[in-house]
Amino acid sequence: MSDFDRLMAYARETEALKQVAGRLGWDQETMMPRGAAPQRAEEMAALDKVLHARRTAPELAALLEGAEASDDTGAAQIRQIRREHERAVKVPGELSAEITRVTSLAQGSWAQARREDDFAAFAPTLARVLELRREEAAALAGQGGSYDALLDDYEPGETGAGLNALFTQMRPRLVALRAAVLESGKRLPRLSGDFPEAAQLALSEECARAFGYDFSHGRIDKAVHPFSSGSGLDSRITTRTDPEDPFSCLYSTIHEVGHSCYEQNVSRDYLLTPIGGGVSMGVHESQSRLYENQIGRSRAFTGWLFGRCRERFGDIGIRRAEDFYAAANAVRPGYIRTEADEVQYNLHIMLRFDLERALIAGDLEVAGLEAAWNERFEADFGLKVDRASNGVLQDVHWAVGLFGYFPTYTLGNVYAGCLFEGLRRDHPGWEEALAAGDAAGPTEWLREGLQRHGALRGPRETIEHATGAEISAEPLLAYLEAKFGALYGL
Amino acid sequence: MSDFDRLMAYARETEALKQVAGRLGWDQETMMPRGAAPQRAEEMAALDKVLHARRTAPELAALLEGAEASDDTGAAQIRQIRREHERAVKVPGELSAEITRVTSLAQGSWAQARREDDFAAFAPTLARVLELRREEAAALAGQGGSYDALLDDYEPGETGAGLNALFTQMRPRLVALRAAVLESGKRLPRLSGDFPEAAQLALSEECARAFGYDFSHGRIDKAVHPFSSGSGLDSRITTRTDPEDPFSCLYSTIHEVGHSCYEQNVSRDYLLTPIGGGVSMGVHESQSRLYENQIGRSRAFTGWLFGRCRERFGDIGIRRAEDFYAAANAVRPGYIRTEADEVQYNLHIMLRFDLERALIAGDLEVAGLEAAWNERFEADFGLKVDRASNGVLQDVHWAVGLFGYFPTYTLGNVYAGCLFEGLRRDHPGWEEALAAGDAAGPTEWLREGLQRHGALRGPRETIEHATGAEISAEPLLAYLEAKFGALYGL
Repeated sequence: MSDFDRLMAYARETEALKQVAGRLGWDQETMMPRGAAPQRAEEMAALDKVLHARRTAPELAALLEGAEASDDTGAAQIRQIRREHERAVKVPGELSAEITRVTSLAQGSWAQARREDDFAAFAPTLARVLELRREEAAALAGQGGSYDALLDDYEPGETGAGLNALFTQMRPRLVALRAAVLESGKRLPRLSGDFPEAAQLALSEECARAFGYDFSHGRIDKAVHPFSSGSGLDSRITTRTDPEDPFSCLYSTIHEVGHSCYEQNVSRDYLLTPIGGGVSMGVHESQSRLYENQIGRSRAFTGWLFGRCRERFGDIGIRRAEDFYAAANAVRPGYIRTEADEVQYNLHIMLRFDLERALIAGDLEVAGLEAAWNERFEADFGLKVDRASNGVLQDVHWAVGLFGYFPTYTLGNVYAGCLFEGLRRDHPGWEEALAAGDAAGPTEWLREGLQRHGALRGPRETIEHATGAEISAEPLLAYLEAKFGALYGL
Repeated sequence: MSDFDRLMAYARETEALKQVAGRLGWDQETMMPRGAAPQRAEEMAALDKVLHARRTAPELAALLEGAEASDDTGAAQIRQIRREHERAVKVPGELSAEITRVTSLAQGSWAQARREDDFAAFAPTLARVLELRREEAAALAGQGGSYDALLDDYEPGETGAGLNALFTQMRPRLVALRAAVLESGKRLPRLSGDFPEAAQLALSEECARAFGYDFSHGRIDKAVHPFSSGSGLDSRITTRTDPEDPFSCLYSTIHEVGHSCYEQNVSRDYLLTPIGGGVSMGVHESQSRLYENQIGRSRAFTGWLFGRCRERFGDIGIRRAEDFYAAANAVRPGYIRTEADEVQYNLHIMLRFDLERALIAGDLEVAGLEAAWNERFEADFGLKVDRASNGVLQDVHWAVGLFGYFPTYTLGNVYAGCLFEGLRRDHPGWEEALAAGDAAGPTEWLREGLQRHGALRGPRETIEHATGAEISAEPLLAYLEAKFGALYGL
């Protein structure tokens, strides 16, 4: 056995244990009895300690020293292992386990505070999470400053400054489009009717199948905050239902299906290896947002979905496919990021991006966070936040320590814009089959060009390989302006 | 920090990781998508390797060397840790991981073979499992021979010879009772009616609550083969439903509730420590069988359950509580251990005990197992086995490597007999509250005298501490002869 083979055998066990940790996280948010939280936190921390020890082990360092790759795939494997090793050695094992323990508990505290609209009750927990992540960021930080160190966990190679430049460039056109839409005075139709939960879930399963989600390697459950989890042969999704609005369930599902199909479709040759999953959160979000929006909210797909909704729900208050398409794309004032339309979505992200950079830099503390959120929200969206669950408590991310994660959503949207341009170029007839509920054309294109490669290439290279073009925000912005210009007669 | 404190901190992490492994096992049999099996097997094996390494670590050996207990609890903790360490060092880590990997996969193969009634399709898998467990038994074996080495995993201190002597002593009276009942010509009533699955599950939840099962630290799901799983703050059960026979669901649930209440009721002071769970499978089964039979099939409890069944199912073909009691205790010829009445149950166990000792000793091979089963079954029960799912494929145990486990059921029945005698002595009025569906009297007695102590004492000492009497099969046999004598007018 060569050093490379030994390195891969070692890495394979680490990957298997990471899957175990992911499964525990899934269980915690879907199945776990509420009173189990303190015990689960210890279980997660113990497992984290095992993982940390593996990532920092002298045995691993020695294998990395000696291993030589014989091809690009091998080089990519080594790159991923080295990256993880080099990050892990900078963070003390006790700190890593403490972060796991605290964030495991914080998830439950956040859910309760959100139910009770009580940010103050959650603030001490969040302050502790922030303190730990600041400490970790300081331990990790290289030249780029400590926010970059956290961001790098989700989006290798990106920096806060780089993303800030990108967002600053995008922002004026998004603000202008939002203003034009809202000032147009045009009101798009809404669904109305009776939407029983069981029918919503059955239809969301149909949607998942339409996008190629493989139920023999996954499943759908309900969760407060939808997420996807797991890789390879076991990649699960969650969704939620709103009795008034089936779009919440259907598009949450399609979004998570995008994530999970990416994981399911990575080449089986890479199963349980370091390149066997999505390469970054930005690329992940490019899949979920593309499935959800460019495809899922297209005329073609909504035309099919319109028929399925009438079949499942009876009268939905809308009688024409064109009106259904409009309803699925309506732009309305609102508080919630996950329910935001494509026009406003990135503005929600930019708000979070600015606040979390201030939090990590120490320019903002948890004590001032709710006020800062509400002030910024009113400035950006013209609405006073009426309760914490509509404001700073709406997202789970910060509660579980995910600082540096939010900007990957907008980066994902930018990538999705690029991919959609490539898809239309390579598959001019992509909408025809889709109108019959068959998304195989676009999903096949994504699978072959992007998903099956996992983390073989870096995030930007992954997108550029799939599109054959340079990354730019222009395709996304042009797509949004064209689509919503037409919908609102601008 | 003393060596003892360091030892306990170390053990606490090991216990947390054991809980993680348990959770994965639960997931595998309740939630996991079927296609995930090969990946799950690697995940389980990786986790087993971690556990094996912890149990055999020189660091642990050194701590065990230096640690001194200051009280009985501490001494019990050290005894448990030492026991696990001494067993683990005898088994090579690769063998242990391979057993985990193979049995994880075998569970799915067994379920499929059982569905298809095809023992031959499963035989190669079972042969591999047997081969690995023989190898493990040989590595472990001390003076007592290799079956004892496996048995010791489930019932520390017991031996095959000791159990054989106990069973040989019990057998004639059980055979005589069975013959008398079946030859009496008396037919007890049966339920008939419409038993929708949702109503069965709702009622089984009511039963669980009646026995004090705490849903904030547990949950109920469906599984092919009901089991309980997990300790302390997260102890879950599973059940199954039969559209013809609600007793299958209700008594499976109550049985598993017995197991899970034991785990839930261990003192919180012992949470995630080596004595923080049930001490042995025999003592575990004493709880589940006592909940299910002596309490759950008593006149008092069936009186309450009769009312609940009529409320939930409407007409159940029975109009008197006395007839319902009889129906819940009817003795009929049958193939399935888990559905067997109290009279025949132990005969099912004795069959398995004899076959598995022959398998481990090498006196019987998998190739001859189905024929041996069918021959012995016909001799003991007077019925020809009509298909493998009614015979050798009915139980999951051997498939997942649990050789040495079966006798603990009958040992548990013996213990339950002793405990029931103690309960009646200490709580002469135990039936009154129970007739109103309140099992707090007996369950409180069990909690205080037995469950809360976890593995503080060895198995036999645990029972004797609770009853204040010596262990004997006499109470069980006398109870069975009195109960079934009255039911069948013997």
